[in-house]
Amino acid sequence: MVTTLKTQTLMDSRFLKACRREATDATPIWLMRQAGRYMPEYRALREKYTILELIKTPALACEVTLQPLHAFNLDAGIIFADILPPLQGMGLELDFVRGEGPVIYNPVRSAEDVDRLQVRPAEETLAFTLEAIRLTRHELAGRGIPLIGFSGAPFTLASYAVEGGGSSRRVKVKSLMMNQPLVWHRLMSKLSEVAGDYLLAQAQAGAQALQIFDSWVGELSPYDYERFVMPYSQRAIEIASQSGVPIIHFGTGTSGMLKLIQQAGGDVIGVDWRIGLAQAWEMLGDAVSVQGNLDPIALFADWEALKTRATNILDSVKGKRGHIFNLGHGILPETPVENVRRLVDFVHEYSQMLNQEDVTV
Amino acid sequence: MVTTLKTQTLMDSRFLKACRREATDATPIWLMRQAGRYMPEYRALREKYTILELIKTPALACEVTLQPLHAFNLDAGIIFADILPPLQGMGLELDFVRGEGPVIYNPVRSAEDVDRLQVRPAEETLAFTLEAIRLTRHELAGRGIPLIGFSGAPFTLASYAVEGGGSSRRVKVKSLMMNQPLVWHRLMSKLSEVAGDYLLAQAQAGAQALQIFDSWVGELSPYDYERFVMPYSQRAIEIASQSGVPIIHFGTGTSGMLKLIQQAGGDVIGVDWRIGLAQAWEMLGDAVSVQGNLDPIALFADWEALKTRATNILDSVKGKRGHIFNLGHGILPETPVENVRRLVDFVHEYSQMLNQEDVTV
Repeated sequence: MVTTLKTQTLMDSRFLKACRREATDATPIWLMRQAGRYMPEYRALREKYTILELIKTPALACEVTLQPLHAFNLDAGIIFADILPPLQGMGLELDFVRGEGPVIYNPVRSAEDVDRLQVRPAEETLAFTLEAIRLTRHELAGRGIPLIGFSGAPFTLASYAVEGGGSSRRVKVKSLMMNQPLVWHRLMSKLSEVAGDYLLAQAQAGAQALQIFDSWVGELSPYDYERFVMPYSQRAIEIASQSGVPIIHFGTGTSGMLKLIQQAGGDVIGVDWRIGLAQAWEMLGDAVSVQGNLDPIALFADWEALKTRATNILDSVKGKRGHIFNLGHGILPETPVENVRRLVDFVHEYSQMLNQEDVTV
Repeated sequence: MVTTLKTQTLMDSRFLKACRREATDATPIWLMRQAGRYMPEYRALREKYTILELIKTPALACEVTLQPLHAFNLDAGIIFADILPPLQGMGLELDFVRGEGPVIYNPVRSAEDVDRLQVRPAEETLAFTLEAIRLTRHELAGRGIPLIGFSGAPFTLASYAVEGGGSSRRVKVKSLMMNQPLVWHRLMSKLSEVAGDYLLAQAQAGAQALQIFDSWVGELSPYDYERFVMPYSQRAIEIASQSGVPIIHFGTGTSGMLKLIQQAGGDVIGVDWRIGLAQAWEMLGDAVSVQGNLDPIALFADWEALKTRATNILDSVKGKRGHIFNLGHGILPETPVENVRRLVDFVHEYSQMLNQEDVTV
């Protein structure tokens, strides 16, 4: 009975309602990378632990996940993890090097490298994140805050796996894609199974929604996306969809191929700040929810300048159902905390006001 | 009489015809940064001279400009220069540091910094590039190859001026824009005068077309572009337009704001590879020419893979007038020269064939 009530509370949360395009009292808001370096609580933990230690110790991952939920009135939590550990589970040697970001010491460059990649269940390779989700759900019990699980999308995983770390041009990954289509397809098949299974396992562990991050997909032409990437994102989303929880499909730089992103799947499409939210939604049609789309740099601005930009976004989709407010990409390390607090509260207050106007008219 | 004939030959060149949306026998092609590090001839010169020496010695700048025109059947030259020297003319201390790219030692951060920026005529501050244009025109006499002059657009110039060099997030320049609108407007006013005057002077020195590079504008939201950048690009283009030569307005990451880019001006709109060329042209309408839009990384692919992508672009705009084939951004240093040669010839041959089919049908 208690469980049923709790489940009901969760299902009635603003965030999950918006995922289903139902009316909400106010626009829900959460922020990509909301648990992270801009928070002093997080930095304090990072002095004691490496990123991988935080990710792989369920109690710590749970603690980090809860930090922003204690500090701000956010409408959803997202499990503290990273998009790269699934690659470690496949046999790639991953590390986070201070000042350099992620490094993979044995990147994928050939058919043999792809053959060596292991496809094992997330229960085995990513048990720590699944356990962190169970812990966090327990901690959040009764608070009515849904928890989001996530994975990198196949292309973004492939980018790191092939480049061996971050890369601005992505020459290696695109060259593999263009020159060795058979190797590429085998690589992407494996990655889509791993990503899909990981997402599904997170929902089974208690996540109420899933986000697939295709952070670097905007570097592709629609031509290449459609032929070499879309089928694999589609496959990962298909597997994850067996969970029945809503799926957010996120990318950046996708203004020129939003319809293809949508075609690959997702109940909610992530939109970055490089296109007006209303214009993007018009291209997508009313059958999906949208998430976005404030420029993360706006959080560095004075409050009035930040407020103006948040207002503009909310005004532009006024009266529509299914908007989840977010940044267009992850929150940056030096972001002033006070601006985060004010933004979260402002989005609730202002959207509530807009909704009331709407009813009056 | 000879002059008239030569002028006529130039005006009848594929490139200038395409700028005017007139029919051409084949699609014209040139490549951004076609004079540059991927060419052994260029690297040989760079062993003896710094980038700034090459730019500031008219005979050398002319030589570099001609290198790709000797090597490939390109339909236009672009004067060898850089988008940053105009900043030097304004009083900023610019250098190109090996491995790091451009550095500005006294970046613009305050109202006082903006006040100090000098707006002087290009004839005084950029005489070397104007002279290089005169020399190159002389060398090209009778070859019927138009020469393009160019400048950074106000926002891209501001990005470097404020950040003090390259930057992936552009926190400083966006923060100045958002927080200090009055300082920003004074800065952008000065930059638009300088860029506009520089472009105009290049046309007067003999350039048959002008390109305004807003390489980083795709980092802005349409909201910010429209209010804080567009009026200044518009102003620079307005000044340059007094020359009567066609103007190419180029940016990357602009799929979500192509209409605004067009509104700022230009006879030809540059389109990067992140949107289908036909889709972009449909958004822009038939009143403008388009330039683009091959992914520069496609030049690293095997010939068959490269050819497929070039074919796809040409097929997608078949039968339309006013397409100038180009990359979506500058050619990269490690690009294989042989692929450049084959691409240039293929674009001519294949488009000629498409045109003939068109006539037959």
